[in-house]
Amino acid sequence: MSAQNICPRFEKATELLGKRWVALIVYDLMSGPRRFGEIDADLANLSGKMLAERLKELETEGIVKRDVYPETPVRIEYSLTEKGKALEPILGEITKWSSEWIELN
Amino acid sequence: MSAQNICPRFEKATELLGKRWVALIVYDLMSGPRRFGEIDADLANLSGKMLAERLKELETEGIVKRDVYPETPVRIEYSLTEKGKALEPILGEITKWSSEWIELN
Repeated sequence: MSAQNICPRFEKATELLGKRWVALIVYDLMSGPRRFGEIDADLANLSGKMLAERLKELETEGIVKRDVYPETPVRIEYSLTEKGKALEPILGEITKWSSEWIELN
Repeated sequence: MSAQNICPRFEKATELLGKRWVALIVYDLMSGPRRFGEIDADLANLSGKMLAERLKELETEGIVKRDVYPETPVRIEYSLTEKGKALEPILGEITKWSSEWIELN
């Protein structure tokens, strides 16, 4: 298999999904819309700054959308787009593989 | 879903698979045993130093195995273990997702 066979779309997807925390953020949003603070609480080891950065990138990539509700105080929710929800089978396969092959020391 | 629900095995798997180049190296080895130079040629943007580092890590994680054939010159081949081959469904789902959702600019 030569370099030409490594599909550029596959390569771009692995770069995007491989970024630290992306899979966990998407996994967290699979259960529905969440506020920043809720995601932050769910991913304890992730800094607020990094979470904000990743959410911005995921918005730019069309995987996450951000809804602002003009209440008092303003309510902002993050949720997966169709493109984001379509990642579920990948996360499902990672879950399967990890439960069979990953040992926790 | 609280932090406790993010399965530590899933988290460890995403950390491992998310490392830059890992998915592409595993993808490359899915087609069978390969020498260092062959993998290096297939992944043009990846430096030899980084490839050596990633192969070492993948060996430590039990995903790749390294076979030395005492010929002249010595022949060294890398191939996927059962644990490595079990990653195929994940790569398959990434391929499907990327072909549907990733646009190349």
